[in-house]
Amino acid sequence: MLPKALQDATSALGCLPGVGARTAERYACYLLKNDPIASKRIAMTLAELHTRVKTCPKTFALISEDEEVSALYENPGRDRSVILVVEEALDLVAIEKTGEFKGVYHVLGGAISPIDDVTPDKLHFRELIDRVEEDDVKEVIVATNASIEGESTAIYLQHELSGRYPDLKISRLARGIPMGVDLGYTDQLTLSQALKGRTIL
Amino acid sequence: MLPKALQDATSALGCLPGVGARTAERYACYLLKNDPIASKRIAMTLAELHTRVKTCPKTFALISEDEEVSALYENPGRDRSVILVVEEALDLVAIEKTGEFKGVYHVLGGAISPIDDVTPDKLHFRELIDRVEEDDVKEVIVATNASIEGESTAIYLQHELSGRYPDLKISRLARGIPMGVDLGYTDQLTLSQALKGRTIL
Repeated sequence: MLPKALQDATSALGCLPGVGARTAERYACYLLKNDPIASKRIAMTLAELHTRVKTCPKTFALISEDEEVSALYENPGRDRSVILVVEEALDLVAIEKTGEFKGVYHVLGGAISPIDDVTPDKLHFRELIDRVEEDDVKEVIVATNASIEGESTAIYLQHELSGRYPDLKISRLARGIPMGVDLGYTDQLTLSQALKGRTIL
Repeated sequence: MLPKALQDATSALGCLPGVGARTAERYACYLLKNDPIASKRIAMTLAELHTRVKTCPKTFALISEDEEVSALYENPGRDRSVILVVEEALDLVAIEKTGEFKGVYHVLGGAISPIDDVTPDKLHFRELIDRVEEDDVKEVIVATNASIEGESTAIYLQHELSGRYPDLKISRLARGIPMGVDLGYTDQLTLSQALKGRTIL
């Protein structure tokens, strides 16, 4: 009932995360109804996305094709002896936005999850262990997600690093009550973590 | 903090309806992390979307570039003397899926909404009025949305058509309780419409 080209666009957009057939149809029809420039812009940017973005061989953050190493890592104002370890490149952006961190990053590329076939050798652990020695690192801050996989990854990392470098400080982000949230709506696990990690006023 | 190409893709995807900066970023990173084929497919289908889809000059439904008139309108099995009027091309698909309608369609291209600068002359009313005469139409079924704009459009259409063609039957879709919905959860307006439009058992 719909033209082939519209069906093709719908099925292509349907591969986006969390986008089902109905939403994809809505996106395609919206683009069709509006200025062709919007469609062309998406088309152009996505066509060259994979060729214009690469990963930094040192930190595994996303960098432009014309960069050698992540600009943040090259920045003399950043302290290379403190590494903050995140799962994904976007997590790095979230931390950077706080403006509180002056060290450098290391992107693991995911979290250990045997059920999804993500074993430690598929993540950038090896390179992190090497970096600790190369850059004479004093502290590794583990900032994996607060999920089962993230916690397992943190434990694995702690185990691997403390075995090799007994003097290395290994920390992780505080668990507790997020800002602006009502105590009554906070889940049991978060509350018990907040209690355990309480700080002196 | 993110490569230019990724930012470009994010801002381009951000123009999709209901997609904010965070979701667009998620889409772009997901595509980057996955097989380039998915990105290329979206790019290719969207690049040619506007050139490969056109509107039928008769019914204003969406048709392929190689078609002259909507295949549905050309189908000898369809009754041209009954026209079902919808706002958008997608509404047509919803009706077709029921398999209950054997007439033809007319897509208005929207609903009257002076606040959005959509006045009757911007919609395909003129062409519908002409079709009624050309195709010797017996009935026009108004299937605009159950919104303020949809209702205004239905009233306007009824007024325009009944003035010109006193013998034309003008009907609209029944308003009432949708299937599978609990009476207690039905809103007042729908209930009062259902009561008004009650049918004999």
